Amino acid sequence: MADSHAVTTDAIRRHDPHLRGFASDNYAGAHPEILAALALANDGHQVAYGEDVYTEHLQEVFRGHFGPRAQVFPVFNGTGANVVALQAMTERWGAVVSAATAHINVDECGAPERVGGLKLLTVPTEHGKLTPDLIDREAWGWDDEHRAQPQVVSITQTTELGSCYTPEEIRAICDHAHERGMTVHLDGSRLANAAATLGLPLRAFTTDAGVDVLSFGGTKNGLIFGECVVVLNPDAVRAMKHLRKLSMQLASKMRFVSVQFEALLTGDLWLRSASHANAMARRLAEGARGVAGVEIVHPVESNAVFATLPRDVADRLRKRYRFYDWDESAGLVRWMCAFDTTEEDVDGFLAALREEMGRG
Amino acid sequence: MADSHAVTTDAIRRHDPHLRGFASDNYAGAHPEILAALALANDGHQVAYGEDVYTEHLQEVFRGHFGPRAQVFPVFNGTGANVVALQAMTERWGAVVSAATAHINVDECGAPERVGGLKLLTVPTEHGKLTPDLIDREAWGWDDEHRAQPQVVSITQTTELGSCYTPEEIRAICDHAHERGMTVHLDGSRLANAAATLGLPLRAFTTDAGVDVLSFGGTKNGLIFGECVVVLNPDAVRAMKHLRKLSMQLASKMRFVSVQFEALLTGDLWLRSASHANAMARRLAEGARGVAGVEIVHPVESNAVFATLPRDVADRLRKRYRFYDWDESAGLVRWMCAFDTTEEDVDGFLAALREEMGRG
Amino acid sequence: MADSHAVTTDAIRRHDPHLRGFASDNYAGAHPEILAALALANDGHQVAYGEDVYTEHLQEVFRGHFGPRAQVFPVFNGTGANVVALQAMTERWGAVVSAATAHINVDECGAPERVGGLKLLTVPTEHGKLTPDLIDREAWGWDDEHRAQPQVVSITQTTELGSCYTPEEIRAICDHAHERGMTVHLDGSRLANAAATLGLPLRAFTTDAGVDVLSFGGTKNGLIFGECVVVLNPDAVRAMKHLRKLSMQLASKMRFVSVQFEALLTGDLWLRSASHANAMARRLAEGARGVAGVEIVHPVESNAVFATLPRDVADRLRKRYRFYDWDESAGLVRWMCAFDTTEEDVDGFLAALREEMGRG
Amino acid sequence: MADSHAVTTDAIRRHDPHLRGFASDNYAGAHPEILAALALANDGHQVAYGEDVYTEHLQEVFRGHFGPRAQVFPVFNGTGANVVALQAMTERWGAVVSAATAHINVDECGAPERVGGLKLLTVPTEHGKLTPDLIDREAWGWDDEHRAQPQVVSITQTTELGSCYTPEEIRAICDHAHERGMTVHLDGSRLANAAATLGLPLRAFTTDAGVDVLSFGGTKNGLIFGECVVVLNPDAVRAMKHLRKLSMQLASKMRFVSVQFEALLTGDLWLRSASHANAMARRLAEGARGVAGVEIVHPVESNAVFATLPRDVADRLRKRYRFYDWDESAGLVRWMCAFDTTEEDVDGFLAALREEMGRG
Repeated sequence: MADSHAVTTDAIRRHDPHLRGFASDNYAGAHPEILAALALANDGHQVAYGEDVYTEHLQEVFRGHFGPRAQVFPVFNGTGANVVALQAMTERWGAVVSAATAHINVDECGAPERVGGLKLLTVPTEHGKLTPDLIDREAWGWDDEHRAQPQVVSITQTTELGSCYTPEEIRAICDHAHERGMTVHLDGSRLANAAATLGLPLRAFTTDAGVDVLSFGGTKNGLIFGECVVVLNPDAVRAMKHLRKLSMQLASKMRFVSVQFEALLTGDLWLRSASHANAMARRLAEGARGVAGVEIVHPVESNAVFATLPRDVADRLRKRYRFYDWDESAGLVRWMCAFDTTEEDVDGFLAALREEMGRG
Repeated sequence: MADSHAVTTDAIRRHDPHLRGFASDNYAGAHPEILAALALANDGHQVAYGEDVYTEHLQEVFRGHFGPRAQVFPVFNGTGANVVALQAMTERWGAVVSAATAHINVDECGAPERVGGLKLLTVPTEHGKLTPDLIDREAWGWDDEHRAQPQVVSITQTTELGSCYTPEEIRAICDHAHERGMTVHLDGSRLANAAATLGLPLRAFTTDAGVDVLSFGGTKNGLIFGECVVVLNPDAVRAMKHLRKLSMQLASKMRFVSVQFEALLTGDLWLRSASHANAMARRLAEGARGVAGVEIVHPVESNAVFATLPRDVADRLRKRYRFYDWDESAGLVRWMCAFDTTEEDVDGFLAALREEMGRG
Repeated sequence: MADSHAVTTDAIRRHDPHLRGFASDNYAGAHPEILAALALANDGHQVAYGEDVYTEHLQEVFRGHFGPRAQVFPVFNGTGANVVALQAMTERWGAVVSAATAHINVDECGAPERVGGLKLLTVPTEHGKLTPDLIDREAWGWDDEHRAQPQVVSITQTTELGSCYTPEEIRAICDHAHERGMTVHLDGSRLANAAATLGLPLRAFTTDAGVDVLSFGGTKNGLIFGECVVVLNPDAVRAMKHLRKLSMQLASKMRFVSVQFEALLTGDLWLRSASHANAMARRLAEGARGVAGVEIVHPVESNAVFATLPRDVADRLRKRYRFYDWDESAGLVRWMCAFDTTEEDVDGFLAALREEMGRG
Repeated sequence: MADSHAVTTDAIRRHDPHLRGFASDNYAGAHPEILAALALANDGHQVAYGEDVYTEHLQEVFRGHFGPRAQVFPVFNGTGANVVALQAMTERWGAVVSAATAHINVDECGAPERVGGLKLLTVPTEHGKLTPDLIDREAWGWDDEHRAQPQVVSITQTTELGSCYTPEEIRAICDHAHERGMTVHLDGSRLANAAATLGLPLRAFTTDAGVDVLSFGGTKNGLIFGECVVVLNPDAVRAMKHLRKLSMQLASKMRFVSVQFEALLTGDLWLRSASHANAMARRLAEGARGVAGVEIVHPVESNAVFATLPRDVADRLRKRYRFYDWDESAGLVRWMCAFDTTEEDVDGFLAALREEMGRG
C-alpha cells in the first residue's frame, strides 16, 4: 500500500477535482479512506467470489450493526441489490407492494419485472412513505390465481423524496405486513442518512422494527461502487447465493467490495459522511426557504432538497450548478448534497439562486 | 492522489500479500497501475452513469484498438457483459449457438436463459473451439416457429480450455455465420491473452476477422473489477444503453471503471500482464510435461494449463497450492497463472508436483 | 357431421343446462352454431399449427371486418392474446401505458411482466377509459435508460368497467400515441359488444381509428374457447408466429379454433349475440335503477352492470344468483349478461333483488 | 345435444374429410365421441376457470388411473403442460436434465427458458431414452452457485423417437433422481401409446415407478385440444394454480377441456385409439422393412416409424402422402399414425413407397 502513490499509470487526470454540483450523491467520487482500504486489500491471492477473508470479516461488521442473525451479501449496485433481495423473498407468482415513487418502480428500467419476473403493485403516496392503510390498497386477493400474489412490502429509507420514516412507522408497516403473511424489504441506498437524521443506530429502525431484508447502500455514501443485501431474517429468503449469481451481481474479486464496507462501517465513516451530507442539505434548504419564489415541497430529512422555482430561473441556475428536474411540468427540481459537499458549495449555490431569482 | 497513501482507514489488512496459487486469474488482486488510476479519477463531481470524461475518453481508447466504428460500454462483470451483448444481438425469439464448454453455458447459473430469455444451442467440441461444421449442427430451422431461431454464434477467445483461435479460424466462423444471417459474439474475458499468444494487435482477430460484438475482460487481467461490451459492428446491436441498465450492469460512478481500462489499454499494461501470465503457464506446462504420470491435455495457448494426474497426488498438491478440479471423474485439473504469478511461484509449484508424484 | 348426435360417449351430463347467473360471460357455454361448426371441420387430416384451410380462410373473414391489411393469429385465451400482441409491439426495454383497471394489470397474475418481460405504466381513470392527457402522465422519458420506454398504449374496448369508447375518443388516443412514436393495442375481449353499442362496423372504431393491433375475443361471445390477435398495422409488430409459439399459445389442431371464428364472424352471429347480451344488461340496469338503495355506478354501454347495494342484500341475493363483488369495501358488485341470458333470467333476478332489498 | 346436428352454421366445410397422411397425429381431427361429449357439457352456466362440475369429476377420473394422490390440472397444449409442470417442480435457480432430443429442448421455441426461466441440461442418447448413467453426465454441481442447479429429470414416454421405456427403466431413473434430491417429470403427450405398447395400466409405469409429475396428452389421441398436468406426488410441486394462470394456460370455459378427458378416460377410448395407432405403425413398419433400400432406424414401440430412404424417393412419395423429414442430411423421415389411420391408408402408402422405390 505504501507504494501505490509512487506508481506511474498510463491514465491521466481529465477532470477538475474541485468542481461539485447538486445533481446527485453519486456524482461524487470516493472517500479517501475508501481508496486507502482498496490498496490495503490488494496483492496476493484471495479466493474469488466471496470466500475471501475480507468478505468473511464483513459478516461480523454487519452483525455488529444489525444484530447476530444478520447475513451480508455484497453486490455491485443498488438495482442489483433490490432485485436480488426481492427475488429471494418472493415466489415466481409473487408481487411487491411499493410506493409509486419507489426507485424499483421508476428508476430501474423494469429490471424487477424483466430480471426478477416480479409484479409491482404500486400506491400513490404524499411524500414517498407507505402506511398500513396505503398498503391495504394493494395487499389483497390472496389465493386468487388471477391476481399476482402480494408477498412483500418494499419501502425506501430515506425515501426517494427525502423524507424519513420513524422507527414506529416502520414497525407499524412490518407488523401489518407480517400479520398478512408478507415480509418487508427496505431499500436502504441512503440508510446511513436515515440513521443520521434519526440519531439512532441502524438496527433501531431496521432489525428492531421488524424489517426482514434490506439493500444497504455504499456508493452514495463514498464508495467507488458496492451495495449489500443484508438479510435480517434468514427465514424470509432462499438461495441468496444462487440468486446473486444468476442476477449477474456476483463480483469475482469480492474482497474489493467488502474492504470498502469494512472501511465504511468499522468506525464512524458511514455516519460522519451521511451526517455531513444531511447537514449540507439542511443548510441549503434553510437558505432557499428565505428566497421569495422558492418553495421547499418535501420534508428535508435526508441529503435531498425538493423545491419549486420558476422554470427560467432553474434553467439559468443549472448552467452554473448541475441539478435535475424532478417534475418538469410542476417546476419541481431536486438538489442533492453528498459527503464531499462543502459549506462554500452550498453558500455559493444559494448566492447564485438569489442572483438568478433577482434577475427572474 | 498524492495524499491517499497517508490516509488512515478503519479497514485492516487481513491477508498475506505474498501468497499466490494457481486456482484462478481472479484470485489475483489489482495491478498497482490500476489502483493508481483509481486515485487519479477521484475527487470532484462527474456526471454519473457514464457521462463522465473518463468514459468519454474510453471510446477513443477502444477505437484505437478495435477501429473507428467501435463503441464501448463498461459493465461490472463478465457474465453481465455476455448477457447484455447477447440480448442486444438477438430478438426475444432468438437462440445462440455455442460450444458446450462455453462459460455462458456452464458457469453463469443460467443467467443467459433467465435474465436474457435466451435459448442456447450447444455443440460438443474437442478443445472448446467451434468450427463452421460444428456450428451447422445447430444453425438450422430458420422460419420454423417451433425452433428457437439461431441468430448469434458465440465463441470464446482464448477458450475456457486454454486454446486460442487463429485469425483465420475466426474469420471462417464469421463468414459462415454472416452468410446465414447470424452475427458473431466473442467472449473475450481473456482476449489480451490471445493477443499475446498470437503476437497480433487485438483488431486482427476481432474486428478484422468479422466479429460483431465482444465482451472484453479486465478483471482477470489486473483490474479490481470491470468488463466492457465492445460493439464492433453497430448494425448488429440495438439499445445497448437500455439493455445494460435493465440488466443491472450500469455503474453509477462509471469513471472508476473507465479509468481502469484507460490505465490498462493506453500503454501496454494489458499486453505486458497477459504475456507474463501466458509465459508463466508455458513454463508450468513445460515443467509438468517432464513429470512422469502428468499429462497436459489441451493446447497451452493462454494462461491456463489442463493436466491429468493421479487423484491422491492432486489432493496432496492442492493442500500446498490452491487449484481446481476440472473433471473430477477424469482426474483432470486446471492450473491458472495470473499477471502476478512469478517464476518462483511456478518453480515452487513444479517442485511440489514432482515431490508429490514421487510419493505417489 | 350428420352422425355426431348419434354417437355414444362415456362422458355424462353433470349439470343443469337451464341454470344461468350473472357472474360472468364466460360462465356461459357455447352457442349451438359454434358446436355445429366444430363438427363440420372434423374428420380427415389437416396440416397442424395453422396451415389448415380453415385458418387460411379466416384471414379473409377478418380482412372483411378489419380491412385489407389485417392479419389474424388465433390463440387460446385472452391473456395469451394480450401478451403475444404486446410482445410483438415492444422491445425488451419497452413499457405499456394502460388504465390501472386494465385486465392486463389486474387479472393476469403478472403474465405480461413474467412471460413478456413487460413493464406496465398504469394510470388511474374514472370509468376505465384512457385519454391523451392521462396517457401523458406516464408517456415520457424517452431515451432515459433508467426509465422503461413507453412504446405502446393499451386500451380495452368495451372497458373492464362496462364503458365504451367512441370512435373519436379512440382516434384521439391513437393520434396522440402515434405522434409520440408509440403504437396502440386494444384489448377487445368484448369488442363485439362495443360494435353493438356503437351501432358501427368493427373497423370504424379500430382500423379506421388508428388502432395498430387488437385482441379479439371469442370465448365471451359464445365460443368454447379461442381468441385472436388481429394485426391491423403489420408495421407495428414483428415475428408474431414465433412469439405465439414461444408464449405457448399455438394450437396444434388450429382448424377447430378457426372454424369457430368463421361461424361467429361470417354472418351476424357475433353481433346478434353481443347485441342480445347488451340488451339484457340494459334491461337489468333499468330495472335496478328503479330499486331504492341500488346505484348504478358506471355507464352501462356493454353487457356489464356495476352497482352498489347493501352488503347483506348482496350476500343474500348471491345465494340465489351467482355474481361477483368488484370492490368489497365499497359494496360494489358486477352483474354480467351473456349471449344466453334470457329476459326471464333478468326479470327473475330483478324480482329477487327487490325482494331482498325489501327484507333489508 | 340432440339438436346440434340440426343447427345451421355460417361456417362451411372446406376440406376433404377422407384425406389422411402420415405427417403427424395432430393432423387428425377429433374422435366423434369427443365431439359428442362437448355437446353434452354445453348449455347453462358453469363456474369458469375450473370450478365446474366436469373438472371436479375429472379429479376422480384421473385418480382412478393414477392413484389416490393424483391431482389433475387441465391446460391448453403440450408445451403449456410441460412448462407449467417444470416451473412447479423447480426454483428460480433450477435446471432440468433431459435428452437432447426432448420436445422441451427442440420443439418449444425456447418456451421453457423464456417463459419458465429454466436452464436445460441436455444429454445425447441413442433412441431418445435417458438412463441413470446419462443423467449423471449433467446431474452434478449442487451448491455451486455458478451452475444452474439440477432439480428435475424430464423424460418422454413414449419418446420423440418412438421408443418406449419399460417400467423398470423408469423406476431406475426415478430412484436415481430421488436419491440425488431431484424429482422426475414425464412428458406424456403419447402416454396412452405407451400403455398400449406395454399392455399395462397407466399407473404401472408412472405413479408406481416413482414419477412425480406428468404431462398427459389428449390432443394427439383424438381431442380437439387439451392436455393435463397430472401431479402424482403433491410434495413435488407448488402453486400449480397460480403457475397455470401466469403461464396463460388457464381455460375460462374449462368444462370443455375436462369433458373431453372424461370421454377419453372413463371407458377405453384412450386405449382403443392408442392401440389402433400403434398397430397401424407396426403394420407400416413391417411393410416398409420388406422394401429394399428402406431402413427402420428406431424401435417401433409407439405410433411413429422412423426410416431412412433415398432423398428423391422421399420427395416423390411426399407428394402423394404428407410426412416430415426428421434429419434431412441423414435422409431420415418420420411416418406417424393416428387414431383415424386405416389399414387401407397404410397399405396404400406402402404400395406408393414400393412404387417410388422401384422408380428410384
